[in-house]
Amino acid sequence: MILTVTLNTALDITYRVPALTPHASHRVSEVTERPGGKGLNVARVLAALGHRATVTGFAGGATGRAVRERLAGTAGVLDELVPVAGTTRRTIAVVDGRAGATTQLNEPGPAVSPAEWSALQATYERLLASASAVALCGSLPPGVPVGAYAGLVRAARAAGVPVLLDTGGAPLRRGVAARPDIVKPNAEELAELTGSHEPLRATRDVRRRGARTVVASLGGRGLLALTDEGRWRAAPPAPVRGNPTGAGDSVCAGLLSGLAEGLSWPDRLTRAVALSTATVLSPTAGDFDRRAYEELLPRVSVTREADAA
Amino acid sequence: MILTVTLNTALDITYRVPALTPHASHRVSEVTERPGGKGLNVARVLAALGHRATVTGFAGGATGRAVRERLAGTAGVLDELVPVAGTTRRTIAVVDGRAGATTQLNEPGPAVSPAEWSALQATYERLLASASAVALCGSLPPGVPVGAYAGLVRAARAAGVPVLLDTGGAPLRRGVAARPDIVKPNAEELAELTGSHEPLRATRDVRRRGARTVVASLGGRGLLALTDEGRWRAAPPAPVRGNPTGAGDSVCAGLLSGLAEGLSWPDRLTRAVALSTATVLSPTAGDFDRRAYEELLPRVSVTREADAA
Repeated sequence: MILTVTLNTALDITYRVPALTPHASHRVSEVTERPGGKGLNVARVLAALGHRATVTGFAGGATGRAVRERLAGTAGVLDELVPVAGTTRRTIAVVDGRAGATTQLNEPGPAVSPAEWSALQATYERLLASASAVALCGSLPPGVPVGAYAGLVRAARAAGVPVLLDTGGAPLRRGVAARPDIVKPNAEELAELTGSHEPLRATRDVRRRGARTVVASLGGRGLLALTDEGRWRAAPPAPVRGNPTGAGDSVCAGLLSGLAEGLSWPDRLTRAVALSTATVLSPTAGDFDRRAYEELLPRVSVTREADAA
Repeated sequence: MILTVTLNTALDITYRVPALTPHASHRVSEVTERPGGKGLNVARVLAALGHRATVTGFAGGATGRAVRERLAGTAGVLDELVPVAGTTRRTIAVVDGRAGATTQLNEPGPAVSPAEWSALQATYERLLASASAVALCGSLPPGVPVGAYAGLVRAARAAGVPVLLDTGGAPLRRGVAARPDIVKPNAEELAELTGSHEPLRATRDVRRRGARTVVASLGGRGLLALTDEGRWRAAPPAPVRGNPTGAGDSVCAGLLSGLAEGLSWPDRLTRAVALSTATVLSPTAGDFDRRAYEELLPRVSVTREADAA
């Protein structure tokens, strides 16, 4: 199985309103709810691709219960979340029918105690024993040390389990130094970590800092991958319009499923680009359009670039 | 005890953000949650005034559980909510720190089945037997017939229990025709019901339609009451600024507690104006500032007007 870690899980709520007007009152015409947080999204896409996924992280309170009830109904995803006394955060995406754009409201996560953090580490080490790969995803809730991901990366390496890291800010900086197998920053995270807005330069810098492979997500322009085996660019056949929420999580699912299946780097990148593009095209944020995914697979361009990274 | 009916209960959530910008992402700095829906607010204020209040209405799903857990911790309020298969709605108030104004997002209520509506009616009739007064408050969730309040008004009258109706639109129109003891429309509800924007004319019209007493809430200008015993205007000593959420519910609590204590109409109106003004002054929406309430009580002006209604 593939293990995903989401320390700051969420109940993702989507509201549809005709138009969002500040300081006015709105009747919400449609409400959808689903378990959220990057690692939970990655696990859902892995399961849709036929992989068994196990999720760990923290869940607490009424919203934590709602997350777990919904996970229990998701085939292929096993819930190994660790209970906490605090309450799992909600995120509210208000989709504005007129503008077609989304206003996002994200609650802070629950405060995590040292004992709860220790319980998570113990659960993680137990699950690593049967994992073929692990993804560490998203922000840290209050109370979890900034070096949390660095510790989890080292534990995965010690267990011989390939580890992907997808986070930002100081947790990314500290995590990269612990030498993860793959990091998947977006353009903004790359620039924040390295100070460079030039993706190739920044990606090289992240490898020098410790990551074995860097797969940089450049939005609609696709992926830039610097690996031990060479450098590739992968791109969709044409830019698409839609909701990019969850597109990065689909990149992680594409990379990890390809790794677990022993695919070559070009095939992993093709899958990652097709999945993330099909996620942007899906009407529901964070799901992918399976038909679009299958149509895109043969049309993704992967180009090997001359010099080794 | 005083019974309040809230067919469309809610989990009221308040978010604080520095400024709400459409189509941007926001970190919420502060989250508060409490049981909501007009009748629940009325009950909370009644309890704060030393009355025993019983609440009925519908509650379901994870949000319904959250409402009931919080009600269990509210001294003086007894929970007689009827379970439903659907999920109690949330309301989100986004308080914008810069503008000091609130953007409101209201979910639709749960669909109520005919069997659930019958269960509510049976619970209501049972509770009427020990009620000294009853308040019927707020909007109807989907599935509840538009004549719902009219039926509940008739049942209260048959049981000899004074009944206050606080709603709008077609449920108000139908409810007024069933001859409630008190209706408490605001200026907008008055105008919608009668077609007149002139409060005195509209209030007289509502009496002709069947209400025994009409207490019209005219915002910062106070109350206009047309009763069997005469006509009064009651007003705060000066207009106040603040959050008017829940001010109308405090008017209901003032009127009902005064009725239960056998106060005269001027004393009931004084209490209602002091409570609603102290609610606007409270930093938390729907709570009242007790010190402001006690300071306002001797300063509310009540004027009897010449001609009988």
